[in-house]
Amino acid sequence: MPNPDDLPALDRRDPESAIADAARRFSNWGKWGEQDAVGTMNYITDDHRARAAALAKTGKTFSLSLLFDADGPQTGWRGRINPVHTMTATGVDAVHVGQGFPHGIGGADDFITMPLQAGTQWDGLGHIFDRGMAWNGRDAAKVVTSDGDQVTGIEHQAARIVARGVLLDVGRRFGDDGELPDGFAIMQAHLEQTIEAQGPTAEVRGGDIVLVRTGRLARARREGWNGYAGGPAAGLSFTTAGWLFRTEIAAIATDTWGFEVRPNEFDDAFQPLHQIVIPNLGLTVGEMWDLDSLAEDCAADGTYEFFLVAAPIPFTKAVGAPVNPIAVK
Amino acid sequence: MPNPDDLPALDRRDPESAIADAARRFSNWGKWGEQDAVGTMNYITDDHRARAAALAKTGKTFSLSLLFDADGPQTGWRGRINPVHTMTATGVDAVHVGQGFPHGIGGADDFITMPLQAGTQWDGLGHIFDRGMAWNGRDAAKVVTSDGDQVTGIEHQAARIVARGVLLDVGRRFGDDGELPDGFAIMQAHLEQTIEAQGPTAEVRGGDIVLVRTGRLARARREGWNGYAGGPAAGLSFTTAGWLFRTEIAAIATDTWGFEVRPNEFDDAFQPLHQIVIPNLGLTVGEMWDLDSLAEDCAADGTYEFFLVAAPIPFTKAVGAPVNPIAVK
Amino acid sequence: MPNPDDLPALDRRDPESAIADAARRFSNWGKWGEQDAVGTMNYITDDHRARAAALAKTGKTFSLSLLFDADGPQTGWRGRINPVHTMTATGVDAVHVGQGFPHGIGGADDFITMPLQAGTQWDGLGHIFDRGMAWNGRDAAKVVTSDGDQVTGIEHQAARIVARGVLLDVGRRFGDDGELPDGFAIMQAHLEQTIEAQGPTAEVRGGDIVLVRTGRLARARREGWNGYAGGPAAGLSFTTAGWLFRTEIAAIATDTWGFEVRPNEFDDAFQPLHQIVIPNLGLTVGEMWDLDSLAEDCAADGTYEFFLVAAPIPFTKAVGAPVNPIAVK
Amino acid sequence: MPNPDDLPALDRRDPESAIADAARRFSNWGKWGEQDAVGTMNYITDDHRARAAALAKTGKTFSLSLLFDADGPQTGWRGRINPVHTMTATGVDAVHVGQGFPHGIGGADDFITMPLQAGTQWDGLGHIFDRGMAWNGRDAAKVVTSDGDQVTGIEHQAARIVARGVLLDVGRRFGDDGELPDGFAIMQAHLEQTIEAQGPTAEVRGGDIVLVRTGRLARARREGWNGYAGGPAAGLSFTTAGWLFRTEIAAIATDTWGFEVRPNEFDDAFQPLHQIVIPNLGLTVGEMWDLDSLAEDCAADGTYEFFLVAAPIPFTKAVGAPVNPIAVK
Repeated sequence: MPNPDDLPALDRRDPESAIADAARRFSNWGKWGEQDAVGTMNYITDDHRARAAALAKTGKTFSLSLLFDADGPQTGWRGRINPVHTMTATGVDAVHVGQGFPHGIGGADDFITMPLQAGTQWDGLGHIFDRGMAWNGRDAAKVVTSDGDQVTGIEHQAARIVARGVLLDVGRRFGDDGELPDGFAIMQAHLEQTIEAQGPTAEVRGGDIVLVRTGRLARARREGWNGYAGGPAAGLSFTTAGWLFRTEIAAIATDTWGFEVRPNEFDDAFQPLHQIVIPNLGLTVGEMWDLDSLAEDCAADGTYEFFLVAAPIPFTKAVGAPVNPIAVK
Repeated sequence: MPNPDDLPALDRRDPESAIADAARRFSNWGKWGEQDAVGTMNYITDDHRARAAALAKTGKTFSLSLLFDADGPQTGWRGRINPVHTMTATGVDAVHVGQGFPHGIGGADDFITMPLQAGTQWDGLGHIFDRGMAWNGRDAAKVVTSDGDQVTGIEHQAARIVARGVLLDVGRRFGDDGELPDGFAIMQAHLEQTIEAQGPTAEVRGGDIVLVRTGRLARARREGWNGYAGGPAAGLSFTTAGWLFRTEIAAIATDTWGFEVRPNEFDDAFQPLHQIVIPNLGLTVGEMWDLDSLAEDCAADGTYEFFLVAAPIPFTKAVGAPVNPIAVK
Repeated sequence: MPNPDDLPALDRRDPESAIADAARRFSNWGKWGEQDAVGTMNYITDDHRARAAALAKTGKTFSLSLLFDADGPQTGWRGRINPVHTMTATGVDAVHVGQGFPHGIGGADDFITMPLQAGTQWDGLGHIFDRGMAWNGRDAAKVVTSDGDQVTGIEHQAARIVARGVLLDVGRRFGDDGELPDGFAIMQAHLEQTIEAQGPTAEVRGGDIVLVRTGRLARARREGWNGYAGGPAAGLSFTTAGWLFRTEIAAIATDTWGFEVRPNEFDDAFQPLHQIVIPNLGLTVGEMWDLDSLAEDCAADGTYEFFLVAAPIPFTKAVGAPVNPIAVK
Repeated sequence: MPNPDDLPALDRRDPESAIADAARRFSNWGKWGEQDAVGTMNYITDDHRARAAALAKTGKTFSLSLLFDADGPQTGWRGRINPVHTMTATGVDAVHVGQGFPHGIGGADDFITMPLQAGTQWDGLGHIFDRGMAWNGRDAAKVVTSDGDQVTGIEHQAARIVARGVLLDVGRRFGDDGELPDGFAIMQAHLEQTIEAQGPTAEVRGGDIVLVRTGRLARARREGWNGYAGGPAAGLSFTTAGWLFRTEIAAIATDTWGFEVRPNEFDDAFQPLHQIVIPNLGLTVGEMWDLDSLAEDCAADGTYEFFLVAAPIPFTKAVGAPVNPIAVK
């Protein structure tokens, strides 16, 4: 039985209407006041966090981060390269040349250069605009200039992204060997059936951070990146916008480059679900998260909920940021 | 009554002997096997983490990170600059120029360039050497080359740094208005008296991450950086090496640039305590942590322990890494 | 006797009128067609270059470039830092670690990160706008986006900046010990008297690149940078706009950070002469050139003209670029 | 008739002996004193330059530089990426947001991050070592550390690389449609026959900078980079080491990534000719130069000599540097 909020069947030739309709129906603009800078992160309360922390029972931890190095998925699209790591002082120098320090101390130092969207990351609220508007109904031109995000920079999220995490392993539920095929659009029904199959610990509640595993990263690990960044992949259907809105989740993250299904579900389109959820819902979106070890563990113990700490490095005025998300069970 | 492990009074003219003696007595080399890459992080067990998680009762969270931007403390010493953040796409462009995307989507992207030691960070085990030796008795020249840390890169710590945190607010206990004067050497007695004054929640146990607040950052916030990076500051005395060793803590962090007292306690010296604790104890050291809000809260509720998640961004083969440490009470 | 084109005496309180007037009178918009991307560089013809090359008689060469390194003049204004040079492979590694190459070959490699305006450079035609307009009357918003300069990128100048150079050593003529005081506004009369004093080789003709020495860099070399970047300095008066226009020179460069006198000649102003000469004249401006050795030589042999090759590194779509200008006498 | 200095026929299985033999016979160590930092650049005298300048007769100029941008040839080998160009201020911002400047001035600024070997460049004398030794017989570990090239940094060449240039268009002489096939080893005989075919203006003399065109870049321009960086290519044979030594040329440059033939002429080898010419001859080597327009012109007018100004940007202690070489005829 369709939810009354559900979108009509998508007309592949008309993304504009679908987007306009979804943006109108699933908007949180103004909900947390005019000054709001964090959107659905507001759903995470201290009480929520206290309950979430209680899920950390065994102390087993999982890092959900890719390694950040030159062997990452980026291929140069939109100027995005993999991280460049260089040394400014080394042990070899300390031992064989000397570094001018007294009493035998030596040291090593290093540098990084990278796009903030290079690896495991959060898309900040200033990362995507809908017809010129940024989160909360602001003029995108007034929000993100060459000086960065003046309003919704990722630094506002520094202490906030601590919540109950729920893994929805859609790959395991609907894929072969745990991997969905490219282009598989994850519908609300897939999410709901995954929750049901996984049991009560997979229930999704307000303030949660939902992690959706497609298996795309597992394939990349086995076969090489091969289009992981920007190519075809399973992902959320545009039609899940309503579910993402109504569940009042705080954030969502996937093991794919782009969170939503690719190719997108319109003939001429680019990330239409982003266009709804970031500027209209105020939803922070995580991408390129490594969910595989956590998924193994959840499948083994049947517990799909955990305490999740995923606080980004607070680069001031950044529209995204690397994060090393830690799940604790 | 002196602890039998205590060091003799320091001879300011002879750092070499003091260092040789401390390195011999406070060494963990081999303790966790020849292949070990994480040192005292081994003290953190899942049981420890489970108990630590239980400290998160109210869900109140604190980010212990500085903002990462051009207004940071770095002044160029050893090539260390503040983070350089540049935009590769902006809202202004999206609105006023167009970005070539369909159906009204627009986006912003950004880049960062920075030393990994620029802001709130962990010193990795490959960051400091003692007379040519790196952690666990390895030849520093074989560990850290121009290709980075081949053995103890920060990526090995990605999922580990989750533990009980304890704040020792030495600044509040011994300073004026919560701030120790520059050059104040924090001795074992200061630590112990702070623990005693703060009460049972401040007890330090194996596997803990100890946060020592000096108040130096509070002053920098008020007066400007003024030598925060590399200048005089309160900090741990060289003589605390034994305490750091015997307590079997997993890590230590301070609100100062350099963790140990500056000027150092020898006439001609550079960070001699680093030389003991990183390569010999295998202790991971945090620097430039913002402990002020947390300290306010601890003083208010009298609870100095909390759940601490301080997982660094896993830059492969890095000798340090930025971190946004999250304390949950 | 005033030139009929001369500007009226400046009203310090009204830069807007002075700028509007100068922009109207000294505009080259349209002079070289609608598509033009190089402005006054059009004044340099092959014939001009052939005559200029004939000035290279002794083969003595001068590099007019500062060194590019961390000890440069930048202090962070507008995000401008000094160049960051890091090694990605070293001789120490080659000798003491090995690099995986056969038959005893070893190598070193390096990286640079820097603002293109960090050191000795050309301001490209997209570097400065006048009331929203870029060179040749184009909408600045259509010329320089986050993707760089779409029209007048410095790459268009790659093969062009080869011409007769003329040194006007105003510092030697009017300064003490060859150095003008800060705030000294170089007027047309100073330029003309310098030319006259220096003799026929200092005559300025169409297509020339004029190098104006103030002595500011000599002082920086002696006393440290001390505000070299952005602080007070001698430089061209706003009132020289007409001279720069009428002489039909191809380019101008100085030994200062900002080419024009600082503080500027209006009460509330920022580089008003730039606002005239770059977008309205289409004049390419060089800054932070080291003219001291060349000036010594010119004073010694009385010859102030030379062959000048000052081709920038062609960074595509850049609004400026580093250059190592070479004068050959 | 073989030159008495010629090497014996190469034994593909024994690069070590060939290298040892060539290094012994073609060494300039000590020739210009113990302190020398520029090697064969010493062959360029002022007299040489004066004669060279006289070759600039028509004033026609050629930039021999590739564009520096993200579409360059680099593919990540040894960490080498293409230049990353980002804007820190734009015209769009100036027009539509404002930049805080008075009287209508606006500006654009930009940043570059790149390996110094990314595009058209000079290999500095610290770029390559022979069995642990750098140019002039120095311990490579003492010359190039993590702090850069302490002795032979490219800054020493800042004012020097101004000389007679001679184009040897081997591609046009021996290739199909001006392009040599990959793996074509250019022998001394090919060079000599090209000189003879091109006539007196192609004569090679001491102090010259010799430009060897293979046609490889012309193919890359037509077909895409396809392995241009590091893949197979025509280039100088190892056996030309003696010719490069005896001719007393100041420098050599090619239109290929790696100057010498690839695959190299030994079974297990990496750039053996580099190993001879850079550390032993002290020869500065240019790579990735765009010689096509110049070659067209030389073929048209039959004049293969010109005035060449190829001064690198003086990055202090760099082992290489970008250059925009200018040929003037």
